Amino acid sequence: MTSIHPVILCGGIGSRLWPRSRAAMPKPFLPLVGERTLFEATLDRCADGANFAAPVVVTGAQHLAHVEAQGSAGMQVIVEPMGKNTAPAIALAAHRLPADAIMLVCPSDHHIANTPAFVAAAQAAAKLAADDWMVSFGIEPKAPETGFGYIKQAEPIPGGYRIERFVEKPDLERARAFLAEGGYFWNGGIFAFRAGAFLAELARHRPDMAAQVAQAVELGKAEGARFHPDEQAFGATAGDSVDYAVMENTARAAVVPVDMGWSDIGNWEALRDARACDDCGNHAAGWVELVDCSNVMVETDGPRVSVIGLENVVVVVDGDDVLITTTAGAQKVGKLGGAVNQ
Amino acid sequence: MTSIHPVILCGGIGSRLWPRSRAAMPKPFLPLVGERTLFEATLDRCADGANFAAPVVVTGAQHLAHVEAQGSAGMQVIVEPMGKNTAPAIALAAHRLPADAIMLVCPSDHHIANTPAFVAAAQAAAKLAADDWMVSFGIEPKAPETGFGYIKQAEPIPGGYRIERFVEKPDLERARAFLAEGGYFWNGGIFAFRAGAFLAELARHRPDMAAQVAQAVELGKAEGARFHPDEQAFGATAGDSVDYAVMENTARAAVVPVDMGWSDIGNWEALRDARACDDCGNHAAGWVELVDCSNVMVETDGPRVSVIGLENVVVVVDGDDVLITTTAGAQKVGKLGGAVNQ
Repeated sequence: MTSIHPVILCGGIGSRLWPRSRAAMPKPFLPLVGERTLFEATLDRCADGANFAAPVVVTGAQHLAHVEAQGSAGMQVIVEPMGKNTAPAIALAAHRLPADAIMLVCPSDHHIANTPAFVAAAQAAAKLAADDWMVSFGIEPKAPETGFGYIKQAEPIPGGYRIERFVEKPDLERARAFLAEGGYFWNGGIFAFRAGAFLAELARHRPDMAAQVAQAVELGKAEGARFHPDEQAFGATAGDSVDYAVMENTARAAVVPVDMGWSDIGNWEALRDARACDDCGNHAAGWVELVDCSNVMVETDGPRVSVIGLENVVVVVDGDDVLITTTAGAQKVGKLGGAVNQ
Repeated sequence: MTSIHPVILCGGIGSRLWPRSRAAMPKPFLPLVGERTLFEATLDRCADGANFAAPVVVTGAQHLAHVEAQGSAGMQVIVEPMGKNTAPAIALAAHRLPADAIMLVCPSDHHIANTPAFVAAAQAAAKLAADDWMVSFGIEPKAPETGFGYIKQAEPIPGGYRIERFVEKPDLERARAFLAEGGYFWNGGIFAFRAGAFLAELARHRPDMAAQVAQAVELGKAEGARFHPDEQAFGATAGDSVDYAVMENTARAAVVPVDMGWSDIGNWEALRDARACDDCGNHAAGWVELVDCSNVMVETDGPRVSVIGLENVVVVVDGDDVLITTTAGAQKVGKLGGAVNQ
């Protein structure tokens, strides 16, 4: 079959993983699970030449050095002059690929434990995308999470389902009802499109955005493996997510179910859960002594950390910052003074 | 009345207050409550010339620099060649004072909120000591603490009670029974003796110890305000506490009740309790952000500490060490690797 073109989006800074993730060294470029950084692991998953073409990375100037330091051979990099959310970023990549290229859009800062399951889903999604479906990966939900959007399936199609609707982050009661009812998936932000079909759908539902991005590409400049969209044209583009701009409007939305050990590593609790633990559910990285602790994760970049008697707590020592949070409080990390004022 | 001679014992290193208290800068010499160090505050309490003579400090060579840096005018310092527990230390001081001097033996690392109550008890104890009673301060118990020894009162004598018996640290059930029964006090390690009477009692109950200390003084050397007992003679002395060597054996043990806001600052929980707190029971010293916390104490000597969602936890950042303990776990701090191997 045709190669799949990975399109890796390298945008956010992961402020809920402060103080390890910082503006100067954000989440995708850190080895948060295992030895490889999340960005490297994202490239690794798409490195099999039998299935995948060389990747296209869409990023900002502030992350360019990290991307090029950790990137893979043959990688193209599109350097956004500013962030405009995912729909324009994907449109940039679509313009830089042949119209019949199958794009697999992946965030650069998620963890996926089961690569074969990921590849199988990518193949199924690619087949649907070749028929001009706008395809979303549907992550099998493991718990009534309130931090994710949900996708409700409609009737089956080969390799997946039509999408009945997208659901914004629900409250706990609704999330529980979704799991009880079945047919709901987490929206993990992974998509497959035929490049030309994506641009056609964008032009249909967001003609101004589509036109601005097209102009930014037309006036842009290639520089070796880098491509710089025109700053003025791209700056005039309306920012929006691919969910709002395309997925919720298209008549051809499809979902491919996948169970691949996925985590968005959205906060310290999610990271703790993604890591291997000892018998007490503890995880320690660095010079750490734990006494009477359970489900405690500690990581330190130098100072010795001694912990007595805690449960369900995350401790992070990074430079001149010490973070201590309950796992239940992990969602609030991004609003701490240290995370906001960096 | 006769002046009271404060005898300040500066021995322990306070390993349960690690990492703030360290071998190189131990507990008595740190400003743990308020601006003054515990040692300075101990001297301050006995600084009133109307009641007190100049202090005698008994310490080890490893603490001498701290003692002399923080000490008061007129202070004498007895430099122990090694630690032999409290009975020999008090005997050294008794030898260096006139036989009819009234000694008030005080640890250097306790906190006392109510100085007038302390002074009143010292005066009552001094009167009994002048009659050759071996006098212990009896701290009014505030809770069924299992970390202190208890003193059971017998019949009243002027200014206090005879002591029926000393009780080792009880378990919780016994401690509760003591409080319910009444007539029990915490043994706070504060004593009053006539110097000559103390030496006589020591000679009666521990003749070898008494003889060795007498020889160590006889062969010792004065050097300005310092006195150095003879190392060989003092080294041959059996070590023991004043409780075991004298108080539990003497026929003339007395207790003077006192309610003076006393704490031995024996661990981080006790220190938290001794400090002023905000409305949530939190106490922060240094660059600290607390979110959804109650009864949390944080102190940091530099790094910013951000805490979310904890209750009844103490966080200490000191140099290259970070300690995080529940208040319930505070007793175990002294056994941490960092506290043991310093």
